[in-house]
Amino acid sequence: MSCNFHPTPESVPPPNVQYQLQLPKDIPVYRHPLNPLSFLLRAAQIHPTKLALSHPDVPHPVYYTYSVFTQRVQNLAYALIQAGIEPGDRVAIIAPNSPVIAEAHHGVIAARAVICPINTRLTVPEVAYILEHSGAKLIIVDYEYARLVSGAKVPVIISNDTGRAGDPYETFLTNGRIFSQERGWAGLAWETDEDAASSLCYTSGTTGRPKGVITTLRGSYLAAIANAYDTRIHPESVYLWILPMFHACGWTYPWALTMAFASQITLRTVNPKLIWNHLLNSGVTHYCGAPTVQISLVSAPEARKVPRPVTAIIAGSAPTAQLLGELEGKGISVVHVYGLTETYGPFTACYAQDSWKKLSLDERARKYARQGFAFLTSEPARVVYPPKEGDPLDAELKDVPADGKTVGEIVMRGNIAMKEYFKDPAATAKAFRGGHFGSGDLAVMHPDGYIAIQDRSKDIIISGGENASSLAIEQELAAHPDILEVSVVARPHPKWGERPMAFVILKTQAAPKWKGKHADFEADLKRHAKTRLPGFACPEWVSVVEELPKTSTGKIQKVALRKIVAKL
Amino acid sequence: MSCNFHPTPESVPPPNVQYQLQLPKDIPVYRHPLNPLSFLLRAAQIHPTKLALSHPDVPHPVYYTYSVFTQRVQNLAYALIQAGIEPGDRVAIIAPNSPVIAEAHHGVIAARAVICPINTRLTVPEVAYILEHSGAKLIIVDYEYARLVSGAKVPVIISNDTGRAGDPYETFLTNGRIFSQERGWAGLAWETDEDAASSLCYTSGTTGRPKGVITTLRGSYLAAIANAYDTRIHPESVYLWILPMFHACGWTYPWALTMAFASQITLRTVNPKLIWNHLLNSGVTHYCGAPTVQISLVSAPEARKVPRPVTAIIAGSAPTAQLLGELEGKGISVVHVYGLTETYGPFTACYAQDSWKKLSLDERARKYARQGFAFLTSEPARVVYPPKEGDPLDAELKDVPADGKTVGEIVMRGNIAMKEYFKDPAATAKAFRGGHFGSGDLAVMHPDGYIAIQDRSKDIIISGGENASSLAIEQELAAHPDILEVSVVARPHPKWGERPMAFVILKTQAAPKWKGKHADFEADLKRHAKTRLPGFACPEWVSVVEELPKTSTGKIQKVALRKIVAKL
Repeated sequence: MSCNFHPTPESVPPPNVQYQLQLPKDIPVYRHPLNPLSFLLRAAQIHPTKLALSHPDVPHPVYYTYSVFTQRVQNLAYALIQAGIEPGDRVAIIAPNSPVIAEAHHGVIAARAVICPINTRLTVPEVAYILEHSGAKLIIVDYEYARLVSGAKVPVIISNDTGRAGDPYETFLTNGRIFSQERGWAGLAWETDEDAASSLCYTSGTTGRPKGVITTLRGSYLAAIANAYDTRIHPESVYLWILPMFHACGWTYPWALTMAFASQITLRTVNPKLIWNHLLNSGVTHYCGAPTVQISLVSAPEARKVPRPVTAIIAGSAPTAQLLGELEGKGISVVHVYGLTETYGPFTACYAQDSWKKLSLDERARKYARQGFAFLTSEPARVVYPPKEGDPLDAELKDVPADGKTVGEIVMRGNIAMKEYFKDPAATAKAFRGGHFGSGDLAVMHPDGYIAIQDRSKDIIISGGENASSLAIEQELAAHPDILEVSVVARPHPKWGERPMAFVILKTQAAPKWKGKHADFEADLKRHAKTRLPGFACPEWVSVVEELPKTSTGKIQKVALRKIVAKL
Repeated sequence: MSCNFHPTPESVPPPNVQYQLQLPKDIPVYRHPLNPLSFLLRAAQIHPTKLALSHPDVPHPVYYTYSVFTQRVQNLAYALIQAGIEPGDRVAIIAPNSPVIAEAHHGVIAARAVICPINTRLTVPEVAYILEHSGAKLIIVDYEYARLVSGAKVPVIISNDTGRAGDPYETFLTNGRIFSQERGWAGLAWETDEDAASSLCYTSGTTGRPKGVITTLRGSYLAAIANAYDTRIHPESVYLWILPMFHACGWTYPWALTMAFASQITLRTVNPKLIWNHLLNSGVTHYCGAPTVQISLVSAPEARKVPRPVTAIIAGSAPTAQLLGELEGKGISVVHVYGLTETYGPFTACYAQDSWKKLSLDERARKYARQGFAFLTSEPARVVYPPKEGDPLDAELKDVPADGKTVGEIVMRGNIAMKEYFKDPAATAKAFRGGHFGSGDLAVMHPDGYIAIQDRSKDIIISGGENASSLAIEQELAAHPDILEVSVVARPHPKWGERPMAFVILKTQAAPKWKGKHADFEADLKRHAKTRLPGFACPEWVSVVEELPKTSTGKIQKVALRKIVAKL
């Protein structure tokens, strides 16, 4: 009974006290510096025995409750501090989706350091550049990628992904454990500057050197809230990691999941068979992934209807009607979001209207393919006229009309826009033209206020003087019943300047039908295009391919397709 | 089709531009000052035609879409500015739940002023004190309460609650409309200081003068997020106003609802018949109310099973097993929250554990009656030893052990704790002892970290040297099958110092059974008590009453019961 009838001397430390960090006395009572670490500490207090993370498909599977996971994070924080990491220092991590990178997202900021996740697909010189540029003081690396940092000049902690004694990463944690046992969370200081950096993520720049995007603790906290709220992640949710956590800090989901007290499952590889096993048998309710990843999922032989509602958060490019229909048919509903590394991942979402329910799949997909409106905790995204030659950087931005036709650049600002490009004030100033972050993505604003991306400026096809959006052409070609995936780029044309060239992957069941009949397929696709696109936007050339070049997040690399075109 | 094939000259102003306020150029790209007005502006952009507010049970019902509601808010902001309201000025409002007070929660802060909602149940001198103390520059008052401000020395705008031309409040809005048509949102400045005051709410102090609680824009924004997220309010949600909006700004729900794009229904009175009509026929999914309000609802003759899941957010006191059972039986699930005006309403919630599902209703109710853990955007609530005589105000607070027995005071801090008591630095300093807001509520901390309120210090009954919690006694007495509602206070006793006296309302169906048999009922209740409570906590006296004295929010006024006891 909840009263003090029988006081006894025994005492257990209250969870809320165990999980408090030091806060200077001069912080006002009514202010607490925002920091996504709050979420994990709260989860450990309220749901200590709940499953936080499982890592099942490895020789040594691990299953961590929130209590254990949080203790490991604390150990990591102390281990980093013991290793000489100081507030503001960068800690690099190179790992596939696994406990070590999930823990780093909390443990590094608990040490008041900056997490610098590095893409596992990069080459040794690319990684060397990032390590050099970021000035990372320590590297945590998964055994599979240890070769990427063999020349590193700073301490390297290798994780064998076993969670067992003897694993160098576990030994490192044990170093921290000595201090954490003695001092607990109270031995660590809470970062008082909510604008302090939380992460440093390098953009996968297709040309030039990658740029280092600095995000803040405040931004990470607010972005995580928007992601959890808008995709309805709650304590009963189970999130499957398909999106690499190294990509823009997994769109802040490492923090959104702890905020929601959800469970997460980490998979080292994007393997449709494994993924379907979890979708069907592990209670998965949410996952994130680019459309190309989703296409490989719905086309997998294991694909069937999921036994409970699943939400797929899609970004990278817009879902087509075909994909939307196939996902819906399997019980998977889609949240289409848009953003960049510079906006903590998702910045806008295509919020559905009730009236769309009455539309045909095709019509609904057109609505859904748009990027929509700014997120809960972001400020409005705008579409503005691109700068003119010689415009000063602080020139007032002018919005394009909401006519669904005039193309401008998507610009963004507010709490979930990046703080800066690390050590690059010139690039930062250029990116922040007119007091907004310029995305470089070209879009129109529809009369209903929905933003719809046309293309990145370099992807626009200028055909006979008309601007043709490669994305818009792809959307229409994808409606062809035999096409699994399609990408369109410009190819020089003697008469029209440029004309669209389509690269197509056929559906498995359609491939035999067109085997050896490329010209017939090309004619068929062109007929299809003519019914849906103006003449200048119809593909002049069609190439049937087995696969398309993709980035680690599943984005199609048009730059690689353009290289192929250049050689034709 | 989302591309720029056929540009046309027509243009419509994009919604995201229409809804932007002025922001100085020196605000960094990555920072936007938090302000709950963001939520309404976003709702108007994304869901302009969605029903924002309906006010149905009046001679002139109104139904406002988000577009119309937001326009009215803009008009109000301009009208206030035209009336001479400057940033930081207080604007008082006295109204039952109705459009005018909903609009004021957005319009006053859009004018960068501070909303000061006044309890409609106060007397003329009490209102005069608040008007004087707050220094309100303008008063908006509902016609039914106009008499409360007849002596006011500042402009008074009367609302006849018609939404029609000729209504003085509508005329006032029309004044604003002249400017808003011309200037739009762009004519208003965004408050750059997120710690600026958003509201000034006076506590319903049972003794002494009421104190004015200042909240901030940042706190209102973050509290609204926590309320919407934790109670799962979403675009399809319909919220029924039962809690008075004048009480702690309706626990920030005016903002939480717009954040969620939800619809709200305002009712001028708490009338169980009307409420049931809406619960059964208007798609209601959420409402807030004290347990006494809920008891009147489940006991109403109209009560039946609701046609869709409804969430009742309960605060003010803990729900009993009986109430929980009756609500669940009607399809209404409960979220039990705890807080004060000084914490924007809810600061903690009793987060349910999966393991509770297996418990009996009685056992589950005991778990559920606890105040639980801090909210998403609040910092941990602590239970600390009360100050000793002569302790300095900055003395370190010491947590009581998590033994479920040692009584301490609940203290709180962080983003959803108040900024200060208005014009009362001495009371503020005292309330902020040890860098936390002291609630004055006595509680224990259970080993699982759940806080459970015992009593306010003055409600503790000291019986034979033992501290008996009146709340704990009430919980046990309420389990008696014939009791509708019960309140327990201390009554002086020659031998034991104090002993508990119970005031009981019988269930309608039980009343005839005990008619004229008071002594039998008393004996029966005492037998019941003996099986559940230690001897010193059993009631010595039982009084069967027709009703219990309550505050405007439905809290039982123990001070009034103690007055009755004093006369016995």
